[in-house]
Amino acid sequence: MDSRTEISSLGEFGLIDHLTANIEFQNASSILGVGDDAAIVDHFGRQTVVSTDMLVEGVHFDLMYTPLKHLGYKSVVVNLSDIYAMNATPTQITMSIAVSNKFSVEALDEFYEGVYAACERYQVDLIGGDTCTSRTGFVISVTALGEVAPGSFVQRSGARKGDLICVSGDLGGAFLGLTLLEREKKIFLEHPAVQPDLENEQYVVGRLLKPEARQDIIRFFELQQFLPTSMMDISDGLSSELLHITSKSALGCIIYEEKLPVHEDARQAAFKFGLDPTACALSGGEDYELLFTIRQEDHDKIVLNEQISVIGYMTEPEKGCHIYTKGGNQFRITAQGWNAFKEQ
Amino acid sequence: MDSRTEISSLGEFGLIDHLTANIEFQNASSILGVGDDAAIVDHFGRQTVVSTDMLVEGVHFDLMYTPLKHLGYKSVVVNLSDIYAMNATPTQITMSIAVSNKFSVEALDEFYEGVYAACERYQVDLIGGDTCTSRTGFVISVTALGEVAPGSFVQRSGARKGDLICVSGDLGGAFLGLTLLEREKKIFLEHPAVQPDLENEQYVVGRLLKPEARQDIIRFFELQQFLPTSMMDISDGLSSELLHITSKSALGCIIYEEKLPVHEDARQAAFKFGLDPTACALSGGEDYELLFTIRQEDHDKIVLNEQISVIGYMTEPEKGCHIYTKGGNQFRITAQGWNAFKEQ
Repeated sequence: MDSRTEISSLGEFGLIDHLTANIEFQNASSILGVGDDAAIVDHFGRQTVVSTDMLVEGVHFDLMYTPLKHLGYKSVVVNLSDIYAMNATPTQITMSIAVSNKFSVEALDEFYEGVYAACERYQVDLIGGDTCTSRTGFVISVTALGEVAPGSFVQRSGARKGDLICVSGDLGGAFLGLTLLEREKKIFLEHPAVQPDLENEQYVVGRLLKPEARQDIIRFFELQQFLPTSMMDISDGLSSELLHITSKSALGCIIYEEKLPVHEDARQAAFKFGLDPTACALSGGEDYELLFTIRQEDHDKIVLNEQISVIGYMTEPEKGCHIYTKGGNQFRITAQGWNAFKEQ
Repeated sequence: MDSRTEISSLGEFGLIDHLTANIEFQNASSILGVGDDAAIVDHFGRQTVVSTDMLVEGVHFDLMYTPLKHLGYKSVVVNLSDIYAMNATPTQITMSIAVSNKFSVEALDEFYEGVYAACERYQVDLIGGDTCTSRTGFVISVTALGEVAPGSFVQRSGARKGDLICVSGDLGGAFLGLTLLEREKKIFLEHPAVQPDLENEQYVVGRLLKPEARQDIIRFFELQQFLPTSMMDISDGLSSELLHITSKSALGCIIYEEKLPVHEDARQAAFKFGLDPTACALSGGEDYELLFTIRQEDHDKIVLNEQISVIGYMTEPEKGCHIYTKGGNQFRITAQGWNAFKEQ
């Protein structure tokens, strides 16, 4: 950044005008956006899907290693991921931020560059928000709206016994990216002269800092003309989300360690840190992949999609939730999600 | 409070279940609520109105004199006020909070008691949200959805030359309540033994801590079968909002000091603090009254409503925005809203 403009020099309304000056609507349903008491959305004949998430500095992100542009992008994407997880199409977002004076207008511009990049990538409209002062950290709250044909949304509760359990993409990468960046931060704080060693780690760092929402999977369902029986996005870790699906659907499940999709770069990173790649895949959060169940007769429809892995199947509730390891052992799945990791 | 339950003893999902266990939907359009990735709303044939607001501890509220139940109530009401200000009917809200460990489950129950009381009073459904940890203060983010018949929403930009400027209720009370509570806080911090002197101040304190949104005014428009030409709610102060309406409508305005509605209790409180009641009405924020303009020919329709005051009229833009004082002077209106007050 070459120059620094104080937020106070623009004032609250000047700042909002500045940050929202270039919005162009992508959706016909966006009738009225930023600049009035509320925004207007028209979803005639479609159901509106609503999701909201809050991101807090020091809890969900660390500005020491999170570029603001990536943070803006990610804060949109994590909300869109929830909309896709309902089998819906995101159409609008509102973005509220609380910032302290340590941020310049240029810093907020970077953040919003990321916000707008995500809006453009996913064809959603920013239609409102709130910008206020924070005495302490940076807090971001995003609400996403989407639309779905009546009755076509997919809940967590619809899985049936025998359904195949599937995940998109690969798992554990974001957690390994976090582990790496936390290690580099610690080294930097102790030895400021040491340069970070991020070579060959682009994949896991990218998984943490710039996740994408699985729009492609939702489009694939539409193209293949079938629906999962249940679905959710993996934000807290596969174990935790599997327990949500089984509990909401009143079933048990079996998954297979050898079927868990782990990227080769994530596997290498895990070994480097002395971590078990399977534990990272089970308990690492923030991958924003989709976890869903399908009827066995729909297996043919997904088998050629390399972005989808079948990892197990749903069982009677009495059987509980278990993983079969490569060594032939069976372990009960417990919720050791993201939060557990962070609190250790 | 007799007992204290640590939030950590419930865990995030246990806490959400605990706080949302008793939700019963009031609106047929609320299809699916808390407990999945997103909520589903059905607004067939109506337009969806969306508004969002963030409230930050130490900036928007002081927990030293704000009961949590009132805070929960107010955090809903300020959002509903924005929906009414579009001439729409609020139907759903999402509520996200970031809290530190200093809050017990019992404290959050109090907060949510207020949230649910507001939901019941205004017949809106809580359909989603996010609950997360804060390292520092309490942050609340609410998004409200509402509905309106297509094309019936009222923007800030619709005022025309000659339109009458109206406000609901009375102004300045909330600012005087804040002034009073800030004074009592200061006295308490300096002399903890001194008991607060809030006798005869219920009105102004109530205006700050438990504001109501003007649902009655929107219903009145419907009953009288006419629409304002422009409207917004008064959250930052009358001066600031008048400048928004005139700027968005590309007009000027004249208002009359003697027409400004100030409650007798607020007037007395102002005198007690050596403040000008008119300055409080112009620049004090958080009254959550409605500011709107109507065609002159609609004057008959509002004249008998004691909750509506005509305070002036819209002029050519060249004339700017002015107030005629009781003494016969004319002053330019400048934006000295809430924020300006707080920064002094």
